[in-house]
Amino acid sequence: MPALRSWFSIPRGSHFSLANIPFGIISTQSSPTPRVAIAIGDHALDLEAFAAGSGFSALSTIQPHQAVFSQSSLNAFAALGRPVHSVVRKYIQSIFDADTQYPEVLKTNSTLQKQALLPLSEIQNHIPFFIRDYTDFFVGLNHAYNCGVIFRSASEALSPNYKHLPVAYHGRASSVVVSGTPIRRPNGQILVDPAAAKKEPTYAACKKLDFELELGGFICKANNMGEPVSINDAAEHLFGIVLLNDWSARDVQAWESTPLGPFNAKNFGTSISPWVVHSDALEPFKTNGIENDAGVLPYLKEKNESHFDIQLKVDLKPQSSTSTTIVSTNGKHLLWSYPQMIAQHTSTGCPLNVGDLLGSGTISSTDRSGFGSLLEQSENGKVAVKLSGGEERHFLQDGDEVTISGVCGSDEDALVGFGQNVGKVEPALKI
Amino acid sequence: MPALRSWFSIPRGSHFSLANIPFGIISTQSSPTPRVAIAIGDHALDLEAFAAGSGFSALSTIQPHQAVFSQSSLNAFAALGRPVHSVVRKYIQSIFDADTQYPEVLKTNSTLQKQALLPLSEIQNHIPFFIRDYTDFFVGLNHAYNCGVIFRSASEALSPNYKHLPVAYHGRASSVVVSGTPIRRPNGQILVDPAAAKKEPTYAACKKLDFELELGGFICKANNMGEPVSINDAAEHLFGIVLLNDWSARDVQAWESTPLGPFNAKNFGTSISPWVVHSDALEPFKTNGIENDAGVLPYLKEKNESHFDIQLKVDLKPQSSTSTTIVSTNGKHLLWSYPQMIAQHTSTGCPLNVGDLLGSGTISSTDRSGFGSLLEQSENGKVAVKLSGGEERHFLQDGDEVTISGVCGSDEDALVGFGQNVGKVEPALKI
Repeated sequence: MPALRSWFSIPRGSHFSLANIPFGIISTQSSPTPRVAIAIGDHALDLEAFAAGSGFSALSTIQPHQAVFSQSSLNAFAALGRPVHSVVRKYIQSIFDADTQYPEVLKTNSTLQKQALLPLSEIQNHIPFFIRDYTDFFVGLNHAYNCGVIFRSASEALSPNYKHLPVAYHGRASSVVVSGTPIRRPNGQILVDPAAAKKEPTYAACKKLDFELELGGFICKANNMGEPVSINDAAEHLFGIVLLNDWSARDVQAWESTPLGPFNAKNFGTSISPWVVHSDALEPFKTNGIENDAGVLPYLKEKNESHFDIQLKVDLKPQSSTSTTIVSTNGKHLLWSYPQMIAQHTSTGCPLNVGDLLGSGTISSTDRSGFGSLLEQSENGKVAVKLSGGEERHFLQDGDEVTISGVCGSDEDALVGFGQNVGKVEPALKI
Repeated sequence: MPALRSWFSIPRGSHFSLANIPFGIISTQSSPTPRVAIAIGDHALDLEAFAAGSGFSALSTIQPHQAVFSQSSLNAFAALGRPVHSVVRKYIQSIFDADTQYPEVLKTNSTLQKQALLPLSEIQNHIPFFIRDYTDFFVGLNHAYNCGVIFRSASEALSPNYKHLPVAYHGRASSVVVSGTPIRRPNGQILVDPAAAKKEPTYAACKKLDFELELGGFICKANNMGEPVSINDAAEHLFGIVLLNDWSARDVQAWESTPLGPFNAKNFGTSISPWVVHSDALEPFKTNGIENDAGVLPYLKEKNESHFDIQLKVDLKPQSSTSTTIVSTNGKHLLWSYPQMIAQHTSTGCPLNVGDLLGSGTISSTDRSGFGSLLEQSENGKVAVKLSGGEERHFLQDGDEVTISGVCGSDEDALVGFGQNVGKVEPALKI
């Protein structure tokens, strides 16, 4: 399929081509109230301003709902449902199309261009959804296996349930923040000497601060309590995807996680990228995930592949040095897909709400260069990870900046990208 | 201290004496918009109506904030802070006092009495807070020990961290419901024969449905991300307490919980009692919890006792039979207090928000009659629990009604009670 051509200047290689149209929440210095926008090339199209300037005049479907674009989160827009998102997204593509049927809307309307098309360098991104509940899955099989080898053994690496259900735990919604928010190194309860027979914990700064490369999926359709979502309907519940960094305090985690799983080791911060790539934009990049040889139960069995072929990488930049790409992997390295996660989450009748966030779990390939955390790359601190500036890392140091990026496709004029998810480590509070 | 006397008729033995004044959210058939109220004897005082009828005319502190009483949750009122709650609660007590200084406000104002004093039998209770995040602790030491013995052994019953930190996991906020909401037996992924070497799971109705007797604490003061709450300040963050039933699907839990803890086994429903007993009302009932012999780290060390002496019981009523009290225990059987839970939760910088709910974990005494779940009472289905009507239970059956109640004090004219937390088990959906 040839790339869509636009009358608007979209730089080659932009993550936000006309094939994408991701949604987010923005503000500007002169107009500080957060509102809905899409990203296109180096610009955001402010949909509140676009609507106010009769931008949707040729799209009657959306006219009764235009107030959703003035909201400070995508929740109200998302709740309109995937068919409405599709119509809006296609309409915006048609407005930017070189041969648009509606040139008067924007192409020849320099007033509205000035009001609604804002350089990305001049906007502030906000968290795209009000997230009531955040769940973190653990469906990156290679990551689960690597962790199992580190903490147990190769033969006991995966728990017996692992290939039968998408394993997950409830996460902390209040500490999900948008890319760019600094992450303070947590203090936490840590075992002084994990090998000692007598357990002597202390409250100290985390010494094993880590990132985790994940996808995050946003829910756009609620289900009632007591009413599971069928695997066949689950794709309609997924608004779209962001890049997620599940910052982790490995020393806190090792001590606290038995028997109820990670808690303080994760709840100090989770970063997401600001532009939500819509499910429609990801359609052409659907692919198979990791093959499941365990026999999937009918309530989790899908008719079609529904993983995403997303090239993912993590760059690490020390405070006073250059950046190194330390992870290169792909979003398809998951055992369970988003529809399967949604079916499992609701299988007992748990109600999902619009705006809920589902983390995928850490994504790792089978080779070390594709391991999605320092825990795996350094084998829990045993092996140094070399950086291009001559430094090395076992875990994150203060001042380190971690950047996750992701993109679908190879046609430089038609990339469907996620932009960046950036977070910088600040020193711990003095105790 | 002699009981406060009221001009208003408060039945002896009422949970809602003048010493209590718990807060909740109510509606009526004729006025269906939820709003703030307090409970007193057999009545609710509708604080929206009370405010509209100049009820707060003698309390200037609250006048700029009266809109909080028209909200559909207690969040805005709670956010005013404990000093404001104290003033409001004491003022309401003074209005109902037999020798009130302000008889014209309500005592001799039959119009406002008619507008604002509503029989509890004529009101509908709603969930008292908008709960953004729900955390479930596990600080009932006897329960943790009993579970450890059932699933491991007496010598390995408690995890090594147990006495060093309040163990917790993040729960599911969206499925927290108010007392009276039916709980549908979940379907879930369950192991057909847990003893078999080959693991063969199935998706079927839960056969081991259970209750858990817990307290729930609501947060009234937020902390910023990255800024822990000191143990000495933590009590100011606790608005009050409710009774919580952490419904649990034990067969789902046994299969799913390794390695990340319970998820689907808990997220189908959590019930809370509707009237939140304020921290001030609980002050006279402060007591010591279970002694911690492990040496508490300074960041968790309290100056004063801050557990609550609450007599707790659970009644089970089969569909066609009478009710039996199957659990009698006390709220003090916890290893860690609410201030300690708050200090631990925020120790890594996790932000708590107003309206967040913290479950205590199941409360059990050391004797069987005080075990707070059927898992413990039946030793995971091995021992029958006898009911008065001649029936017996290993786990809950369809139609069973579980009622948790709790009360502080013994003076029948000055009880500080929680009322009831009732939930009835509905049959599972056909698969």
